[in-house]
Amino acid sequence: MSAAAQARRLRDPADLDITVLEQGRDVSYSACGIPYWVGGLVAGRDELIARTPAEFAAQDITVHTGTRAVGIDLAGGVVVAEDGRRFGYDSLVIGTGGRPTRPPSPGLDAPGVFGVHRLDDGAAIRAAIDAGTGPAGRPMRGLVLGGGYIGLEMAEALQARGLEVTVVLADPLPMQLLDADMAARVCGALREMGIAVHTDQAVREVLLDVDGRACGVRTDGGSYDADLVVLGLGMGPEVALAADAGLALGSTGAIDVDRSQRCRDHPEVFAAGDCAQTFHRVSGGVAHVPLGTHANKQGRVAGSVLAGRPARFAGILGTAVTKVGGLEIGRTGLCTTQAEQAGFAYRADTIEATTRAGYHPDAEDVAVKVITEQGSGQLLGAQIVGGQGAAKRIDVLATAIWAGMTAEDLAGSDLSYAPPFSPVHDPVTVAARVVSRTGQG
Amino acid sequence: MSAAAQARRLRDPADLDITVLEQGRDVSYSACGIPYWVGGLVAGRDELIARTPAEFAAQDITVHTGTRAVGIDLAGGVVVAEDGRRFGYDSLVIGTGGRPTRPPSPGLDAPGVFGVHRLDDGAAIRAAIDAGTGPAGRPMRGLVLGGGYIGLEMAEALQARGLEVTVVLADPLPMQLLDADMAARVCGALREMGIAVHTDQAVREVLLDVDGRACGVRTDGGSYDADLVVLGLGMGPEVALAADAGLALGSTGAIDVDRSQRCRDHPEVFAAGDCAQTFHRVSGGVAHVPLGTHANKQGRVAGSVLAGRPARFAGILGTAVTKVGGLEIGRTGLCTTQAEQAGFAYRADTIEATTRAGYHPDAEDVAVKVITEQGSGQLLGAQIVGGQGAAKRIDVLATAIWAGMTAEDLAGSDLSYAPPFSPVHDPVTVAARVVSRTGQG
Repeated sequence: MSAAAQARRLRDPADLDITVLEQGRDVSYSACGIPYWVGGLVAGRDELIARTPAEFAAQDITVHTGTRAVGIDLAGGVVVAEDGRRFGYDSLVIGTGGRPTRPPSPGLDAPGVFGVHRLDDGAAIRAAIDAGTGPAGRPMRGLVLGGGYIGLEMAEALQARGLEVTVVLADPLPMQLLDADMAARVCGALREMGIAVHTDQAVREVLLDVDGRACGVRTDGGSYDADLVVLGLGMGPEVALAADAGLALGSTGAIDVDRSQRCRDHPEVFAAGDCAQTFHRVSGGVAHVPLGTHANKQGRVAGSVLAGRPARFAGILGTAVTKVGGLEIGRTGLCTTQAEQAGFAYRADTIEATTRAGYHPDAEDVAVKVITEQGSGQLLGAQIVGGQGAAKRIDVLATAIWAGMTAEDLAGSDLSYAPPFSPVHDPVTVAARVVSRTGQG
Repeated sequence: MSAAAQARRLRDPADLDITVLEQGRDVSYSACGIPYWVGGLVAGRDELIARTPAEFAAQDITVHTGTRAVGIDLAGGVVVAEDGRRFGYDSLVIGTGGRPTRPPSPGLDAPGVFGVHRLDDGAAIRAAIDAGTGPAGRPMRGLVLGGGYIGLEMAEALQARGLEVTVVLADPLPMQLLDADMAARVCGALREMGIAVHTDQAVREVLLDVDGRACGVRTDGGSYDADLVVLGLGMGPEVALAADAGLALGSTGAIDVDRSQRCRDHPEVFAAGDCAQTFHRVSGGVAHVPLGTHANKQGRVAGSVLAGRPARFAGILGTAVTKVGGLEIGRTGLCTTQAEQAGFAYRADTIEATTRAGYHPDAEDVAVKVITEQGSGQLLGAQIVGGQGAAKRIDVLATAIWAGMTAEDLAGSDLSYAPPFSPVHDPVTVAARVVSRTGQG
């Protein structure tokens, strides 16, 4: 829809027909808002809808909802819908999005197992909570598989609705895009909230009751009862349509595109969002990081280019924020594992500071970790974990990394200070300074 | 003290004697915290003290408190104290700080008129509030002269202590370093809080009661009763000692130094902080912006250089944040007046957005104004006014300006998103995008 909206901004309806096929009923909504809707912070489904098909229609963008594309005829320039209709195109944008990761374990399709992908998933979880009670009047038990952003946000949402919550993950720690030392803080916060976290346990099967409904999960480490199972195992690219048509996939498994979001062998076809491969601005390597921020920008690039205005996507840092309880989490750029994989000689420094002036009654602890290239001092990545006001500071580091700044550059830069917002040396400055002081730069 | 601490980090006591002369009793404290102490948010004076003379002594930094320097003999390399003691030096750092602006109006030295400069000022205001009541049992009336950061923070602090508060300023709006459209939002917030704001009125005299105590203020627009008058008229450089010694002052009236904080004709003498002239990173012009963030960095540069390690101060953007009630305010770089004065052909764009996803119950309005160079799209300055989470976003813009980014660069950069922290397009991104889209870049 970003591509459609951008193309319409640049070209009149008389000049460019725009048609959108959508298999579901919603075209522009906040999947990231689902946990907050489930948790009760957001009142209704409609609030998560950014724009309706009718609003797009008012811009002369024709939206066919409930219309699943099942084939692309690249030679003929035609998309075929499940109902047999055929839609010709001069330019095609593929935005099939992501596909929630589902391990090949028995029972994952059973009633009582829920994804967190579409608004209908959120509605189903809400309905299950509203309808259900635990056995013999106990609170319902919610089990979340996976410890990424969505998994942890759903764990908190279920707890907010009164469920006893367990998180089970295959990794040693939640938040695989954080380094272990920072992820351990998140894990500690979850446990302090009363959420049980079981790590290093791959799921083997979903246990079913006599009615064939999910009643628990068996892992290679144990079995856990549950009245409701939520899948938070991450998101792969949904590429079946593109692959069937013969479009090339990249090494990440997502659709291979150039920096204009064009498929290399079919310049009339674009792909954008969670279905498309992209590249990391720091490592230069290919990447698949399914985030709405990237998807929106890529869609705009595709919409611009197909409408005739040159544009290019400038790469990703994988900047992301979330919170669990009162703990805020931000990350950007390369974590140490990624820096290692990309072949950087790097160093990592972590500092402890406070979110506000130390004497301010609302000051909370914050840890800032900065990953820099040895020698040059160039900023490669950063992670922040701390109290209120911590997470969004990651944007300062993301901007500095984006601009190619060194830690010393950042240490000298002019960040703001007032006691309710920061110590006189902002935690970001302190982290940058520690790197500069102790060696390189 | 920043200079002293930095020099000590680099040179052992056996190698470098460090002596500090301080006229008061505190050497390292948060003047910016005074309003929060007066307002009752911070419990005690001691909390505002970052480091005591004893802590510096433990690092072999000799601090003479209560010792006012009254003369510098540049030829002999000697500082003379009020009590007649003479202190020889090889390198001298002048950190005499700022001098609160006082118009030449009668009565400004009367009892009941308070500065907000040293901790003793805070103690005196607290004592006056604790002791006083208004006439005939009315609430006390506090009058603040000036509408800068300190003035507005003090207005809120006095209101928090139960006073009826009036702010009187000579300018048409508070916050002279904001553009008028943004400052008007701040003025509106003050009035909504029940603080009376009288603009365009230069103070003529402080009215005194029969005991010679301040009981009000007469301006060229009217007279205002007050039980307590607070001066928030800004801060000039305190340069008497330097000027008497024959050190050159710059066109701002502050001590002229090079980028190593050295006085140009006396390379053995440094000046840093509110007493020193500096330069603006965007305009390249000279500047005097008395903020603790700049002072600290300049002190470190002076301390490094005198200890033998090259360093240079990289300039200021004048980044600053504050809040009045629930309204957060941030600014960085050039405002339109400054851009005009610096000779830039500029444009200014303001966008309205929300601090969190629009559907989040805690989402609040935020306005972001971006000033860019016409044609190049280079970012020159920015201002943000809005609800919780608004102000610290100025650091992203400050970092982008620091790095010389254009609005288009910033629009493409990878800022974070999650519903509790941001709409999917961060307000900063939206502002940068609007500039890119509507013309240049």
